[in-house]
Amino acid sequence: MWRVSDPDFEARVKAAFDAQPLMRFIGAALTRVGAGECCIDLPFRTELSQQNGFFHGGIVGALADNAGGYAGYTLMAADAGVLTVEYKLNLMAPAQGDRMVAEGQVLRAGRNLVVTRADVFVDGENGRIHCATMQQTLMTMHGKGVA
Amino acid sequence: MWRVSDPDFEARVKAAFDAQPLMRFIGAALTRVGAGECCIDLPFRTELSQQNGFFHGGIVGALADNAGGYAGYTLMAADAGVLTVEYKLNLMAPAQGDRMVAEGQVLRAGRNLVVTRADVFVDGENGRIHCATMQQTLMTMHGKGVA
Amino acid sequence: MWRVSDPDFEARVKAAFDAQPLMRFIGAALTRVGAGECCIDLPFRTELSQQNGFFHGGIVGALADNAGGYAGYTLMAADAGVLTVEYKLNLMAPAQGDRMVAEGQVLRAGRNLVVTRADVFVDGENGRIHCATMQQTLMTMHGKGVA
Amino acid sequence: MWRVSDPDFEARVKAAFDAQPLMRFIGAALTRVGAGECCIDLPFRTELSQQNGFFHGGIVGALADNAGGYAGYTLMAADAGVLTVEYKLNLMAPAQGDRMVAEGQVLRAGRNLVVTRADVFVDGENGRIHCATMQQTLMTMHGKGVA
Repeated sequence: MWRVSDPDFEARVKAAFDAQPLMRFIGAALTRVGAGECCIDLPFRTELSQQNGFFHGGIVGALADNAGGYAGYTLMAADAGVLTVEYKLNLMAPAQGDRMVAEGQVLRAGRNLVVTRADVFVDGENGRIHCATMQQTLMTMHGKGVA
Repeated sequence: MWRVSDPDFEARVKAAFDAQPLMRFIGAALTRVGAGECCIDLPFRTELSQQNGFFHGGIVGALADNAGGYAGYTLMAADAGVLTVEYKLNLMAPAQGDRMVAEGQVLRAGRNLVVTRADVFVDGENGRIHCATMQQTLMTMHGKGVA
Repeated sequence: MWRVSDPDFEARVKAAFDAQPLMRFIGAALTRVGAGECCIDLPFRTELSQQNGFFHGGIVGALADNAGGYAGYTLMAADAGVLTVEYKLNLMAPAQGDRMVAEGQVLRAGRNLVVTRADVFVDGENGRIHCATMQQTLMTMHGKGVA
Repeated sequence: MWRVSDPDFEARVKAAFDAQPLMRFIGAALTRVGAGECCIDLPFRTELSQQNGFFHGGIVGALADNAGGYAGYTLMAADAGVLTVEYKLNLMAPAQGDRMVAEGQVLRAGRNLVVTRADVFVDGENGRIHCATMQQTLMTMHGKGVA
């Protein structure tokens, strides 16, 4: 569906993900990269929790931000950078589970601005719960930008 | 300006902050708590960075979310819990600096819903930069809620 | 998919829509109501435009807000009221066309809070364009609230 | 505080406001324009209301969007256009009153993107109420853009 300008986008996104110390620090893994989409997994660890032992909302936001950001990055030119302009996150259910999964997808890919959505799920005792949804604006930094 | 229902709100907020493993994990500290406001500090560490060595946007969001959330929590009853319904974050400048500071304040305190704002700054070589701003909705969980 | 508590939700939503003077004023029509979803149409009129002759962004927002709000209202009890807590709208393409269509759907229906999404399209010379997307939080006013 | 690139920004903003049919249609007036700020007034009319006789949330959003948009437009070059990328609006209290006032201000003016905030008030029997707050992203269309 999406027009891809860099056929090697998958390797490029994986390299960018590996270059983010925060993703390593929290233990997140890039599990799927497609044209205009991206999926990130994160096993639960106590260090990532809030006072009730659920994933902290800040971590939910970090994963959603990245899933949307890399979904957009798949469609950009090989020499472009991606910047998050803003995102809006609704926390819809407690993020209680053994694993969190964030799925990002592109809604609109303009020349400079890209709009994405990400949905975040937790897998736990009661199956998969849709715990958060995000709407995001990215900016393409042509010819390698700030980020 | 704000009507406080729990005179011991400061100790209550500090205890809640200390009960969040994520805040310890990233090294954040609660530096100021007032009626309807809250300030959180975070020294830079490589583990918290994105690919350019700036604070990761997810960490900016986590700090803003908490600064707004605890600002709202100061005004709640002693037996209430606080829940982030949603937040929207604009990343306005690269979060490049030695230290990040998030300042949250209440805009409207309703019986059930509380609206807050948080501004995030980084202190670096070029002084203080206003790197992000957030608008947030909280829910009061009367009689101790989920969170 | 959604659990409906009021079997007469369709008539209830239509009556609520007809009771909004703004919708008549701009010429909007409710074209479809289903459990957890709602569709609103609006023919173009010069009075609704911005300086380039496209639908004004404020009208795009009004239609999206209502499409999401009524989608949520379909799932509420017969004696409940609905209140928009907040919404976030991305304007993705110029709203240039003869007709605007807003489609709202429920993402999460909690006891008090409901999260929805709305997509707005314009039909014009070049076919249908997806011009905006919205993410929204509603509050259920049990036993008829403010609205 | 803000660096102005077009000394005639006030006349330019007024002309742009007057060129928007929607503002005339609803009866809004531009009451103040300063560097990085803008104020819009709107008297109440039944046609602008929702089912309880308050200003409709869509009208609140339209006014906030414009107040933020023109605040940003004051800082742009004489030959630039302004485009709303997205906005997020919290409706904090019923917009019940004889008059609505939206005050927009710039938070960050980048070369391409501008971040603004708008606060909306209603004046009624009980004085002035802060009924809504908005956070917005604008894009500068260099050399006259789409809008």
